[in-house]
Amino acid sequence: MTREEIEVAYRLRVPPAGLAARTEALLLEQTVELPREAVRLPFSRDNLVGRVVSTKEAGPGEFIVTLAQPAANVGANPAQLLNVLFGNCSLQPDVELEDLRLPPSVAAALGGPRFGVAGIRRLVGISGRALTASVLKPVGLSVSEAASLCRSLALAGIDIIKDDHGLADQPFCPFPDRVRACLAATEDAAQKTGRRSLYVPSLVGSPTRVLHQAWTAKELGAGAAMVSPMLVGLPFLSELAADIGMPILAHPAFAGSFRISPPALLGRLFRAFGADAVIFPNAGGRFSYDRETCSAIAAALRVPDAGAAPAFPVPAGGIRRENVQEVLATFGADTVLLLGASLLEAGSERDLIARCGTFVSAVRDHAA
Amino acid sequence: MTREEIEVAYRLRVPPAGLAARTEALLLEQTVELPREAVRLPFSRDNLVGRVVSTKEAGPGEFIVTLAQPAANVGANPAQLLNVLFGNCSLQPDVELEDLRLPPSVAAALGGPRFGVAGIRRLVGISGRALTASVLKPVGLSVSEAASLCRSLALAGIDIIKDDHGLADQPFCPFPDRVRACLAATEDAAQKTGRRSLYVPSLVGSPTRVLHQAWTAKELGAGAAMVSPMLVGLPFLSELAADIGMPILAHPAFAGSFRISPPALLGRLFRAFGADAVIFPNAGGRFSYDRETCSAIAAALRVPDAGAAPAFPVPAGGIRRENVQEVLATFGADTVLLLGASLLEAGSERDLIARCGTFVSAVRDHAA
Repeated sequence: MTREEIEVAYRLRVPPAGLAARTEALLLEQTVELPREAVRLPFSRDNLVGRVVSTKEAGPGEFIVTLAQPAANVGANPAQLLNVLFGNCSLQPDVELEDLRLPPSVAAALGGPRFGVAGIRRLVGISGRALTASVLKPVGLSVSEAASLCRSLALAGIDIIKDDHGLADQPFCPFPDRVRACLAATEDAAQKTGRRSLYVPSLVGSPTRVLHQAWTAKELGAGAAMVSPMLVGLPFLSELAADIGMPILAHPAFAGSFRISPPALLGRLFRAFGADAVIFPNAGGRFSYDRETCSAIAAALRVPDAGAAPAFPVPAGGIRRENVQEVLATFGADTVLLLGASLLEAGSERDLIARCGTFVSAVRDHAA
Repeated sequence: MTREEIEVAYRLRVPPAGLAARTEALLLEQTVELPREAVRLPFSRDNLVGRVVSTKEAGPGEFIVTLAQPAANVGANPAQLLNVLFGNCSLQPDVELEDLRLPPSVAAALGGPRFGVAGIRRLVGISGRALTASVLKPVGLSVSEAASLCRSLALAGIDIIKDDHGLADQPFCPFPDRVRACLAATEDAAQKTGRRSLYVPSLVGSPTRVLHQAWTAKELGAGAAMVSPMLVGLPFLSELAADIGMPILAHPAFAGSFRISPPALLGRLFRAFGADAVIFPNAGGRFSYDRETCSAIAAALRVPDAGAAPAFPVPAGGIRRENVQEVLATFGADTVLLLGASLLEAGSERDLIARCGTFVSAVRDHAA
């Protein structure tokens, strides 16, 4: 057995005098889950107990402790990886998951983004500039209302049009009917504009249902799909990415654990598990991430990594038509900018198309 | 469409002057996700926007706000339920999910515990007293070592013997081989003692793999299975419970990262989604829950509820052979007491059987 290791950094709040014992307890908790003296099996002691890589003071009574845990604990099992990273210790309030590095075998088993930035750019046929995105909402839209909104956004030149994550498969807007109608709407708009917007339906449910939705969407001609990995289960994301052969846009619903750092969860983990693009709450919106956190998420999604293709950051919230330049200066061209309410508050279709036009031009001008 | 509602209580940290606006934003965020004036569709306004039920001060700048959200937002979709309860607002640090009540249609769609307290009691053939449980660990046990430990615990009269959640399907202890050997070990012990312990294998992986493990275990003769709902995805728990026809023991790994009160998550939600017994870190162990929280989890699992059978609370940690009476006085007879390290620290099989014997007798004596 090769001794590949998973590196995982935790932020520990502990008085300095207790640091060594707390670190030892954390190290053992995540694998053998027994005090060291009770680990009598030589095989476990030699092959499965990890080691402390480094300890760094991060503030008064706060330390970044980096552990290396043998990958043999995990094998090729995505759920077991989460167990080792943050299974039991998620229940201990003095510890936060700060960062992680996966060894090649684990990264390869997860597979990472199957399309990533390059694959999504090929699909939409756009290079050299950021992509624009908007959303079909609110829940309550009928099929024809969703399709009509989709058509307006497509006519206005929005590159990616996604379902709101509140649009499930409710009887008033059944999933297959909505997907068929929205795809027809983008096709209809493409006849007029010469460019086809990418419609991204939202998948939600238990795994069997989500897989059924994904294959239905694909058969109907959809080119990508959205899912909320923390709602449906992060290990299922890896299964979906391996199965479906379409780019996956990940939504952060239910992901607001402030005890896993957002760059670690939405950046490293979502990417490792197969997301091709990841939506996150942008600084300045109605959520709480600051600018530094948002940049760190984007960096974690795009940093060169032999084990995983770069994925698109999709900042959402706090973006208005007026500050597109500033947002692009922060995130750069390999970014999808998602605008929702600030477009959809428009009072008429004409107003909506005008608002979209300003947004689309601002993004195109930035590249020029 | 009948106007069934999901009642959901949040703990909001907000200055009193901002309470009304913050409550309105929270109410809309979880369904239509637009400011009220931008919700132009009459159907959405009339059928999908919820209402504020009550607001109660819980401390300085802290309020319990109870909302009623139309169940029509969710339909029979377990993932969409989580979206409405804590999708987007999980990303907002001023809000925690405190409690919830599901209307009959949603509870029925989830199904709740298929076996619960009564079904597990029938399976183990024990009434009128608490059940004893222990665990096969650490990771690194070979198949024959796991089976040997299982046999010792069974001979000592432990009622339920579960895999540690670190035992996955690693090459050094393959899942089907372990299940077969541990079932044979309990059978062998039953020949000697006249009572059969219930062996509970741990399922872990992406959904397809977990389902495969579940069916493999069932075919080999297992009577129950353990899964970590937050690792594999809570909606998948509901699918597994509906499919597998075995009691499900839920493990709390990865469940501590969410800002959902433990009674709401481990109590109400795990039960609603189909767990028949729920492990939780008991007060006094190496985790952080206090006595009041533990009692509230147990109450949420067992409170009479037309929509869901009562489920077993399984306090783990902080239980020693010496304080069994005290723990039972807290939780009562419809409880499974789980002891791990305090038994497994034994230096020999004889010591282990002696330690188990004291534990088993203490539980039986309490009932007598």
